[in-house]
Amino acid sequence: MADRVVLAYSGGLDTSVGIGWLRDATGKEVVALAVDVGQGGEDLDAIRQRALDCGAVESIVVDAKDEYADEYIVPALKANALYQKRYPLVSALSRPLIAKHLALTAKQLGADSVAHGCTGKGNDQVRFEAAVAAIAPDLRSVAPVRDLALTRDKAIAYAEQHALPIQQSQRSPYSIDQNVWGRAVETGFLEDPWNAPTEDLYAYTQDPAVQRDADEVTITFERGVPVALDGQRFSVLRIVQELNAVAGKHGVGRIDVVEDRLVGIKSREVYEAPAAIALITAHEELERLTLERDVNRYKRGVESEWADLVYDGLWFGGLKRSLDAFVDHTQQHVSGDVRLQLLGGRATVTGRRSEQSLYDFDLATYDTGDTFDQSLSKGFIELWSLPSKISARRDAAN
Amino acid sequence: MADRVVLAYSGGLDTSVGIGWLRDATGKEVVALAVDVGQGGEDLDAIRQRALDCGAVESIVVDAKDEYADEYIVPALKANALYQKRYPLVSALSRPLIAKHLALTAKQLGADSVAHGCTGKGNDQVRFEAAVAAIAPDLRSVAPVRDLALTRDKAIAYAEQHALPIQQSQRSPYSIDQNVWGRAVETGFLEDPWNAPTEDLYAYTQDPAVQRDADEVTITFERGVPVALDGQRFSVLRIVQELNAVAGKHGVGRIDVVEDRLVGIKSREVYEAPAAIALITAHEELERLTLERDVNRYKRGVESEWADLVYDGLWFGGLKRSLDAFVDHTQQHVSGDVRLQLLGGRATVTGRRSEQSLYDFDLATYDTGDTFDQSLSKGFIELWSLPSKISARRDAAN
Amino acid sequence: MADRVVLAYSGGLDTSVGIGWLRDATGKEVVALAVDVGQGGEDLDAIRQRALDCGAVESIVVDAKDEYADEYIVPALKANALYQKRYPLVSALSRPLIAKHLALTAKQLGADSVAHGCTGKGNDQVRFEAAVAAIAPDLRSVAPVRDLALTRDKAIAYAEQHALPIQQSQRSPYSIDQNVWGRAVETGFLEDPWNAPTEDLYAYTQDPAVQRDADEVTITFERGVPVALDGQRFSVLRIVQELNAVAGKHGVGRIDVVEDRLVGIKSREVYEAPAAIALITAHEELERLTLERDVNRYKRGVESEWADLVYDGLWFGGLKRSLDAFVDHTQQHVSGDVRLQLLGGRATVTGRRSEQSLYDFDLATYDTGDTFDQSLSKGFIELWSLPSKISARRDAAN
Amino acid sequence: MADRVVLAYSGGLDTSVGIGWLRDATGKEVVALAVDVGQGGEDLDAIRQRALDCGAVESIVVDAKDEYADEYIVPALKANALYQKRYPLVSALSRPLIAKHLALTAKQLGADSVAHGCTGKGNDQVRFEAAVAAIAPDLRSVAPVRDLALTRDKAIAYAEQHALPIQQSQRSPYSIDQNVWGRAVETGFLEDPWNAPTEDLYAYTQDPAVQRDADEVTITFERGVPVALDGQRFSVLRIVQELNAVAGKHGVGRIDVVEDRLVGIKSREVYEAPAAIALITAHEELERLTLERDVNRYKRGVESEWADLVYDGLWFGGLKRSLDAFVDHTQQHVSGDVRLQLLGGRATVTGRRSEQSLYDFDLATYDTGDTFDQSLSKGFIELWSLPSKISARRDAAN
Repeated sequence: MADRVVLAYSGGLDTSVGIGWLRDATGKEVVALAVDVGQGGEDLDAIRQRALDCGAVESIVVDAKDEYADEYIVPALKANALYQKRYPLVSALSRPLIAKHLALTAKQLGADSVAHGCTGKGNDQVRFEAAVAAIAPDLRSVAPVRDLALTRDKAIAYAEQHALPIQQSQRSPYSIDQNVWGRAVETGFLEDPWNAPTEDLYAYTQDPAVQRDADEVTITFERGVPVALDGQRFSVLRIVQELNAVAGKHGVGRIDVVEDRLVGIKSREVYEAPAAIALITAHEELERLTLERDVNRYKRGVESEWADLVYDGLWFGGLKRSLDAFVDHTQQHVSGDVRLQLLGGRATVTGRRSEQSLYDFDLATYDTGDTFDQSLSKGFIELWSLPSKISARRDAAN
Repeated sequence: MADRVVLAYSGGLDTSVGIGWLRDATGKEVVALAVDVGQGGEDLDAIRQRALDCGAVESIVVDAKDEYADEYIVPALKANALYQKRYPLVSALSRPLIAKHLALTAKQLGADSVAHGCTGKGNDQVRFEAAVAAIAPDLRSVAPVRDLALTRDKAIAYAEQHALPIQQSQRSPYSIDQNVWGRAVETGFLEDPWNAPTEDLYAYTQDPAVQRDADEVTITFERGVPVALDGQRFSVLRIVQELNAVAGKHGVGRIDVVEDRLVGIKSREVYEAPAAIALITAHEELERLTLERDVNRYKRGVESEWADLVYDGLWFGGLKRSLDAFVDHTQQHVSGDVRLQLLGGRATVTGRRSEQSLYDFDLATYDTGDTFDQSLSKGFIELWSLPSKISARRDAAN
Repeated sequence: MADRVVLAYSGGLDTSVGIGWLRDATGKEVVALAVDVGQGGEDLDAIRQRALDCGAVESIVVDAKDEYADEYIVPALKANALYQKRYPLVSALSRPLIAKHLALTAKQLGADSVAHGCTGKGNDQVRFEAAVAAIAPDLRSVAPVRDLALTRDKAIAYAEQHALPIQQSQRSPYSIDQNVWGRAVETGFLEDPWNAPTEDLYAYTQDPAVQRDADEVTITFERGVPVALDGQRFSVLRIVQELNAVAGKHGVGRIDVVEDRLVGIKSREVYEAPAAIALITAHEELERLTLERDVNRYKRGVESEWADLVYDGLWFGGLKRSLDAFVDHTQQHVSGDVRLQLLGGRATVTGRRSEQSLYDFDLATYDTGDTFDQSLSKGFIELWSLPSKISARRDAAN
Repeated sequence: MADRVVLAYSGGLDTSVGIGWLRDATGKEVVALAVDVGQGGEDLDAIRQRALDCGAVESIVVDAKDEYADEYIVPALKANALYQKRYPLVSALSRPLIAKHLALTAKQLGADSVAHGCTGKGNDQVRFEAAVAAIAPDLRSVAPVRDLALTRDKAIAYAEQHALPIQQSQRSPYSIDQNVWGRAVETGFLEDPWNAPTEDLYAYTQDPAVQRDADEVTITFERGVPVALDGQRFSVLRIVQELNAVAGKHGVGRIDVVEDRLVGIKSREVYEAPAAIALITAHEELERLTLERDVNRYKRGVESEWADLVYDGLWFGGLKRSLDAFVDHTQQHVSGDVRLQLLGGRATVTGRRSEQSLYDFDLATYDTGDTFDQSLSKGFIELWSLPSKISARRDAAN
């Protein structure tokens, strides 16, 4: 049996041509693997068939939508993960899952290599290869575009020459990656960060400037995991899908940002992630109600680190996993309801309640019935201010 | 000459009655000090006169609006200061400034005490007294409401009995603090965090649900300081005022949050801070364009610490001042323009540009002309993944 | 049945007099509780009897030495806990354990209060009361010395007057707290931080300046827990005791430091903690061998926070417990042997080995057989330096 | 004029052969640059001449000892810089200085490249090249050993063939780098981390096990900078040299550690740094006396980050420079005296005093004259414990 390479297959031009290109360049049999993470678009059976038509010896489709929601999106939500405060890690979350399936398939089929369609200047190459290294350290990774000189022009020529079943008549000007957690768009005119995005960039969200009536939705969380919408229990996947629809309708979750890539350069990115932004907004507020102040404070730093690690491709690394242990522990009380209003591009919390609430009405109220003993504050303030007082005296003496 | 106490005077019921109450309880002469931090409302001359009418031996008004903007708002903006990610420190910023004027006035007039109208269960008592301790460690602080049993009922009775010139016919149900950086509202029905805010709570912002045409504004920063709007140079104070108007018109900067007070309890707060949110949004994005990735990463932690310290009343503390040195150093390149769209409660960056930009078109572009050498990535990824690979091998062996 | 108060009883003057003092001041029956955390000294049966002789209605002794070692010392060791880089939390670790027994005993016996012998200016009062608040929030805490005006002079007079069975003939000039994890000493002449400690302060350690032959000991850890000495398995308690003896003989673990108390003042402290320092030294080095770089890096911050929290009395707080989850997760690979040389006040690691080692000889060696591909470094360095290069170009242009 | 390359020249085999090797491989004229950072050993005039004899077109020696002490060691000392808590950054500190001189010399002489003798698996290659990139982003860096296949065997053959004036008769088994801040040793048998170091590895320190009389030295700091020994003012360089002698005599500053390199592998390192360890020990203690608690706490994190950045070659990076601003600001009060005892491998603080001290005898003492108002503690503890109490009640209810 010839050596084999398992290719992360999207059905598009680059990876379709990549099948033959890899075989020609390496002499290996190519297995195509398409992983469904809710990217939508084409039917996956059609994609599966196309890989075979393009020369794959085997073509596999994996429905990983629930796995993605339960094991990748949920930890990100518990960590309120926003890279550089803004980006909900749309592609960064899906890459380790796809890489895991690549590596496991390769092991299972006796392949010695995996391949992906990434270029050499983005983050995704790192995420794929670092994840593979962490799961199957002896597998080799190949990127035809980066390592085997598969340029766009060559790919088009190859596809025509071999009559590959790919429609590439009018090439989209947009470079897009999408899954159920969001959608990323890059395109030429956005490369000038002074240019504003145009409405046609967006597919998950509608124009927030259009007048609409507000929608309201109540999300129920149990231990940090969203479990119901308006009282009706759903899988996490279904909750994300439903929120993509309703929050997307109001233009929630559009993000336009200059971002630092791991490979040392800044890039300009446009994202849309309606469910992600709605869920993180709700989850954060429920944490404000149910977590102690110092847990909230420390968790902010952990969240930032977590997002950096995942952005940087270290999903399976030791630090990310130990941070998960911290985050999971904090979630034991993060149960309750959050009511969101969706309107005009915003997901606004208008109410939160929890049996695990640390908000104590009797202590907080200014009404009669207040149980807070104000006389305690004097001593607190004196000791709280003592270091300032001592150093002020020192400064006055010097 | 009798002992003197300098009272932070607002013109309202509590501090008006406080003048006589303090004099009666302590035997000291009371000097009233009103500090203008852009709180608007009543004419300050009227307030000055009222203090005298209520028994103050001296009544002083200080216009500190520019000082507030230049020395308190600007550092907060450089630090993108949002306590617990949400609250722009509206009252927390004004308290140290007022305390400083209290302390300096006390020193100047030979007073041995200062006083303020805070209760014993909020943050502001700590902020006043910690700031005074840091500036004039030998001054004593008194809070009539907390320390001298000046309840609301007693205050009303005292005012009637002494015919103090205070209109208290229909008491507002709202407890409000406001200045040019924002406005905070507390009120009875908000004490249930499940209740949504109502439109009548707001004064700085209009209903974002009303259909309007978007406004667009370009803010120019120099070294982190906003210096111009749409190309026209203004003082920081003026820029904040202008943005309060235009961003407020679009309902930008409404905040509804459960928050941790320093004194150990959670409270529910509603804020509105249109200029603050617009400026922080713009400033953060300009930092994304002009700061190195690791500076941005580390600064996120510093910002969080900075906001906590200021919230906690440690404005004049050593750590806050050393963090300022860090933040200031990072701002040397934060110069440039940010274009904001204001609409529907959102301040959205639609463009950013800077002569100090670290965005390199030639490295970032996917067009021809790209100068990024993709072959370098292979070595980078191998070394980046090496620890994961080594630990994966270790795990496989155990 | 009269109300009851459970007093943390040491057998010394203050708490012996405290029994009657509490009863007289509060009218409550006093239950004495002595907890053995390896403090050595007097026989605990004698202490138990003394409490009864001093008027306790009940007197209980708990041997908590193994509980202390397994549930308090082990987490501290896993966290390499040194407050302000130096203090191994000797008293700070024992207080929550004692408080837990106080609270549980109070609950069991239907007492409504607990009491302790601390003064009002130290850390221990906070640790006792914060721990009790976290376990049994409805119990009240009383400190006779602080709250009931039980001064030293009054205590001596009371003991004489009531003929309490306490030898107080020649009062030690030292204020001492000790348990199996170490010993703390305060005394008058140390209150000048310029004065050097004298040899007679020490009891757990011998003079390191005396010439001796080195001892060597190999400590075996499993998942961060010390399990054997020189290949012989022992309980954690026994390992600590053995190391106190052998490391103490060489003067290991003397600490002389100016330290920040929680209550806002600096104090000068002398500690000795031979086993603690030897174990932390060994454990840290084993982590260097078995943890990934970024885990080690992040854990340094967690350790610092953990030590601060425990120092500050927040052992049972939510943040400390969530940090424990992080730390525990990191320890899964911290297994192996560390060889220590003990001599002249130092515990020096001279060897470390582990089946979980991440040290890879083939990658590290400069000999033939090296498997590190040096050509990868070029790409790594180029991308690593790219941000510096971009910002240098920017700076040159401005 | 031919193109030129400036080579960091040590006088040893690799860089001596490197002169001809670079010229042959690149066709460029080679300029040798030797920088004196207190590495001792051979006379620098002899080294300068040897470069010419080996074919350099120009040979330059720079005495950078004071620059190194004042501009590199002092910031490291202010930051108490110990990479991974142990390594005082001996080589990591000297590399950016040497790189700076390389880059400036290259600019001055019109060279387009710089070169260094590092291999491709260590940290120093990154430090050199990252520093050059940050100073002169258009210069290229070459490493003959890594990039031009200059192996040890080839170097010896080349030296013999060209009769280069290098004594390489008996090759030292040790790989050594040293400067006035310390000395690093690697060698074959240390590559097994279970092997103990042997006495012959050390040159800066004598055997601490030998019986000696203690030495005592008082170090005076002004704003964090060491300015005097035993009352006598010296340059920083001289202080470091004196302390290397006296602390080295007592075996202070030996470090044996498994360490994480930037390039993803662990290595075993032995260092000796007597002055560095003595100075950091003293400086840290003076900070304990003069800095506020929260400054000390936050600075611990900054120190760790600072050391990581410098270890990783980012001396000239934006973050390191902004952290310097923070550190410098904290040092304004770090003035005073620290008395160290040197004996048996330990530098022990036995006294500290400062006019900037925050230690307040009247607050700290347990004697009469105590000004600490213990009654304040009750309120402090109640509010400090309130979050624990609230969450305990919540937990009990659930």
